[in-house]
Amino acid sequence: MRFAVILSGCGVRDGSEIHESVLLMLSLCQAGHEVSIFAPDKAQTMVVNGVSGKPMSETRNVLVESARIARGAIKPLSSLVIEDVDAIALPGGFGAALNLCDFGQRGEQCRVDAEVERVLVHAHEAGKVLGFMCIAPVIAARVFGKDGVRVTIGSDVGTARACEAMGAHHEVRRYDEACVDENLKIVTTPAYMEAGSIVECYASAQALVRAMTKLLECK
Amino acid sequence: MRFAVILSGCGVRDGSEIHESVLLMLSLCQAGHEVSIFAPDKAQTMVVNGVSGKPMSETRNVLVESARIARGAIKPLSSLVIEDVDAIALPGGFGAALNLCDFGQRGEQCRVDAEVERVLVHAHEAGKVLGFMCIAPVIAARVFGKDGVRVTIGSDVGTARACEAMGAHHEVRRYDEACVDENLKIVTTPAYMEAGSIVECYASAQALVRAMTKLLECK
Repeated sequence: MRFAVILSGCGVRDGSEIHESVLLMLSLCQAGHEVSIFAPDKAQTMVVNGVSGKPMSETRNVLVESARIARGAIKPLSSLVIEDVDAIALPGGFGAALNLCDFGQRGEQCRVDAEVERVLVHAHEAGKVLGFMCIAPVIAARVFGKDGVRVTIGSDVGTARACEAMGAHHEVRRYDEACVDENLKIVTTPAYMEAGSIVECYASAQALVRAMTKLLECK
Repeated sequence: MRFAVILSGCGVRDGSEIHESVLLMLSLCQAGHEVSIFAPDKAQTMVVNGVSGKPMSETRNVLVESARIARGAIKPLSSLVIEDVDAIALPGGFGAALNLCDFGQRGEQCRVDAEVERVLVHAHEAGKVLGFMCIAPVIAARVFGKDGVRVTIGSDVGTARACEAMGAHHEVRRYDEACVDENLKIVTTPAYMEAGSIVECYASAQALVRAMTKLLECK
């Protein structure tokens, strides 16, 4: 099957979580799927120092930084043709809550980036399978909360409440368990919201890919 | 066993290759090893745009960017206490040839960063096992070429010749094969010098960890 992966920068504090992104790509390739990588071509909301955790006074581009994870094999999200893919997966990292939506600043009042929302809605309407890891399920809650989507962000009470406030039904999951909304064809896994090690993060990526693959096979 | 991993930034063109770094960390944790991550606290030699491949007019710090791969759990290389580790592993990426040595600019005339050289020589003299992936074996060739170290960088003729010019014996290897110098306790694997996919890169990381673990068990 053909998967699109949407990245949000490079690094857990201001972009895509790197382990989740790499282990998602590994799990997809191990399952025999084709992977294409995309990111919005726009400025990051902020740049955060990976050692101090403090904001830095510079600007970086989401697509250019995401390219580091993709080894250059990346395209602007605007060029994603929904008809060319069977499924779309989004790893976490705080970039998902800063650059793909503004949950990091506005919580349950968040808005999703217009291009990200257009892609997700179009893909969903076309019957594609969608997957979200870690904090990225808040995007699913915002876009598909009106449909009562079932999601997990693990067991974090505050984020779970925010998902519910957006109309989603939150379900607690372990790091290696997926939450599967079979009706909406949307899969979520906690990844580093629950994983305590890179081995557990890998198990979370594998759980996502396994559940998405099963939904694709049932089509 | 206790492994130190030395990073050189974040991203294949100007830092550590991200897949190699993550899959090395995964393979080490899967084998039951403890992992501590280090990087030199100094300016990168250059910053390269991950989309265009062209140099960018900005400065970034090797430690701060490496922290993205380490999720913040990283220390300056100057703080690495050799007695606290059993082995040291270096993933590839062009940062290994730009920030840990200057092979990227000077080829076989390269010099190794003084702190990196001090750490490697001290660790080797203390009987620790050393591992190098992808392009990083040029560092082993420069530092241990005087001892006739056996290394692989895969099958790239130019880089292999440069290793030989520095005194090393180069041996061709597949992506999933390690070159093991049992006398010097130095292991090298080609990773993305040969790997054609992230699955093959994972196999290369596993080959490195397997060979290093075997040397540690034979001590």
